[in-house]
Amino acid sequence: MIYDLIIIGLGPAGITAGIYAKRQNLDCLVVGKSFGGQMMNKSVDIENYPGFEKISGFDLMEKMREQLVQKGVQIIEDEVLEVKKKDNFFKVTLSSKEFHSKSIIIATGSSYRCLGVEGENNYLGRGVSYCTTCDGPLFRNKVVAVIGGGEAGFEAARFLSSYASKVYILEKGIEVLASKSNQEIVSSLYPKIEVILEVEMKKIEGEEMVKKIVFKKGEDEIILPVDGVFIQIGYVPASSIFNGLVDLSNRNEILINKETCETSTQGIFAAGDVSDGKVKQIVVACGEGAKAAMSVYKYLNKK
Amino acid sequence: MIYDLIIIGLGPAGITAGIYAKRQNLDCLVVGKSFGGQMMNKSVDIENYPGFEKISGFDLMEKMREQLVQKGVQIIEDEVLEVKKKDNFFKVTLSSKEFHSKSIIIATGSSYRCLGVEGENNYLGRGVSYCTTCDGPLFRNKVVAVIGGGEAGFEAARFLSSYASKVYILEKGIEVLASKSNQEIVSSLYPKIEVILEVEMKKIEGEEMVKKIVFKKGEDEIILPVDGVFIQIGYVPASSIFNGLVDLSNRNEILINKETCETSTQGIFAAGDVSDGKVKQIVVACGEGAKAAMSVYKYLNKK
Repeated sequence: MIYDLIIIGLGPAGITAGIYAKRQNLDCLVVGKSFGGQMMNKSVDIENYPGFEKISGFDLMEKMREQLVQKGVQIIEDEVLEVKKKDNFFKVTLSSKEFHSKSIIIATGSSYRCLGVEGENNYLGRGVSYCTTCDGPLFRNKVVAVIGGGEAGFEAARFLSSYASKVYILEKGIEVLASKSNQEIVSSLYPKIEVILEVEMKKIEGEEMVKKIVFKKGEDEIILPVDGVFIQIGYVPASSIFNGLVDLSNRNEILINKETCETSTQGIFAAGDVSDGKVKQIVVACGEGAKAAMSVYKYLNKK
Repeated sequence: MIYDLIIIGLGPAGITAGIYAKRQNLDCLVVGKSFGGQMMNKSVDIENYPGFEKISGFDLMEKMREQLVQKGVQIIEDEVLEVKKKDNFFKVTLSSKEFHSKSIIIATGSSYRCLGVEGENNYLGRGVSYCTTCDGPLFRNKVVAVIGGGEAGFEAARFLSSYASKVYILEKGIEVLASKSNQEIVSSLYPKIEVILEVEMKKIEGEEMVKKIVFKKGEDEIILPVDGVFIQIGYVPASSIFNGLVDLSNRNEILINKETCETSTQGIFAAGDVSDGKVKQIVVACGEGAKAAMSVYKYLNKK
C-alpha cells in the first residue's frame, strides 16, 4: 500500500496536519517518536494558545492527541530513521517497519539547546526557563540572568526588563554577538540591563527555587544572586535525517515557502519549529500544519 | 495618548494578536464591530481547531473572548470608520471616538458572498453551507449541489464527491470559470460530478432540512432534489476602508508578506481572512495573528 501522505512528528504541527489531512479524506499515516514535542517541556501553563486561558503543555497535548485518535487517523509511535525519494514516491523507514507514500510533511520540531551545567535540569520550571515569552511575566520585580549574548539573548533581556528589576546578560565570549543596533539600544535605553562578558557558567543553585548562579570570570569564581535564569543559546531543529533530502538553512532549519509550506523537494512539505519560520509558537505551528495539509491535498489532486 | 498598537477586528486573528501583544507588554487596543467574525456563522460544530474535538463557533469565540478580557487587554466594540496615516502615527476613527497608535494590525476578516435567493438564510445549517471543509463530511451518500463553477466550486465538488453519492455543479454562465486542468480532471476522474450551465437560481426549499432547489434554465423551471447546497461564489474581504492605505489584491484582499504579515505600508500589518493567504481556516488566522503581533513588537523596538 502507498499512503497519500505520511506526516512525521507528533507535536502541534504534525497533529494539526493529521486532522486536516483526514478532513480532506487523504490516506494518511502520522509517525513520531512520542506525542507532544516541545509542549511537554513548558515549565508553566500555556496562556497564549487561543481557546484556553491557562492549560499545561501536557493537557493541551492530550486534547490534541485525543482529537487525532478520534478522527480515526492511523498513528505509529516509533522513530523515523530514514526517508528516501524513490521515483514518484517516498520510503519512510521506522525502527520497526517501512512505509511508502506519495507525499511527506516533516513536522519534527526542535529542542532548545541546553547549557549543560549542574542545576539546569533540576531547576527547570523553578527558575530556569528556555522561553522568555512563556515565563518572563512570572519575574516581575525579580532579578534574572539571560545566558547568551546573541540576538536572541538581547531580545530576551529587553523583553524581561519590562518585568524584572534587573537583567544580566551573561556571554561566554570576549564580545557579544547581538547586532550593533540591538547593543546600542540596550546601552542607551535599558538601564536595567547589564552585560557581563567572558562568563564560564559553572552551576545554578537554589532551594525550592533558583537563588543564584556560579560562574568563573578569569581566575575569579563569582556568585550572582538571581531569581531566574533564561537560557538563550539557540535551538536544535530535528532535521538531521532530512539533510540531503531537502534544503536546510545555515541553522539547519528546513527552508519552506511560507505560503504553501513546500520544501525544495517536490512532494515534501514542512511545518512548525523544524521549518525556518521566525515565530516559534504553538499556534503558529498549528497554522502551518493546516496549511501544509491543504497544500498536500492540492498537490495530490494536481498529479 | 498614543497606543503602541491598535488591532482592528475581533475574530480569531485579532484576538490572538491581542493576546500576543499583551504578552509582549505593548499598550494595545483591540476594536471591532462585534466579537466572533466568521466563526459565528459556522453551521455545525468546528472539528478541526486543534484542542477541541468538537466545539461550536460561538463557544470557541466565547473562550477566546474571555481569554483576551482576562489578560486585561483594552477592548472597544465599535465600528472603525477610517484609518489614516499621519506622519509617524495612525489615527483610527470609530463611530464614537478617535484613537492614535504607532502601529496597526488589520484583522477584519471576510464574509462569504451570499447568493441572495429565497431559502438561503432559512436553511443555513440545515443543508445550506458556505464551507465545504466544515460541512462536507455530513453529506455521506447524499446528493448535493455546488453553486458556482469557478475554481472554488470545482474544488468543493471534488472534495464533496468523496462523501456524497452525487454532486451537481451549477453555473450561471455559459461556461465554467474553473481552470482547464480542473475541468479535465473532473470530467475524466469524477463520474459523480455533473455540471449544469446557464442556471438561474430561484430558491432553496425543504422541510426540516433542504429537499430541493428550483432554478430556471432557458425557459424551463427545473426542480432538482438535493440534500445539501454548497454556495461557492467567492467571499468579500472586509478591506474597503483600507483601500488606498494599503495595497490590495484583485480580490480586495490585503497583500501581506507571509512571513511577517507586513503590508505595503510601514507600521501596518494584516492577519487572517482579510489577508491574501490562501488557507482560510481558524487556526491559520490565529497563527497569523500571533505572527503579526510578534512583528509589531520587533517593528516598535527597532524604531
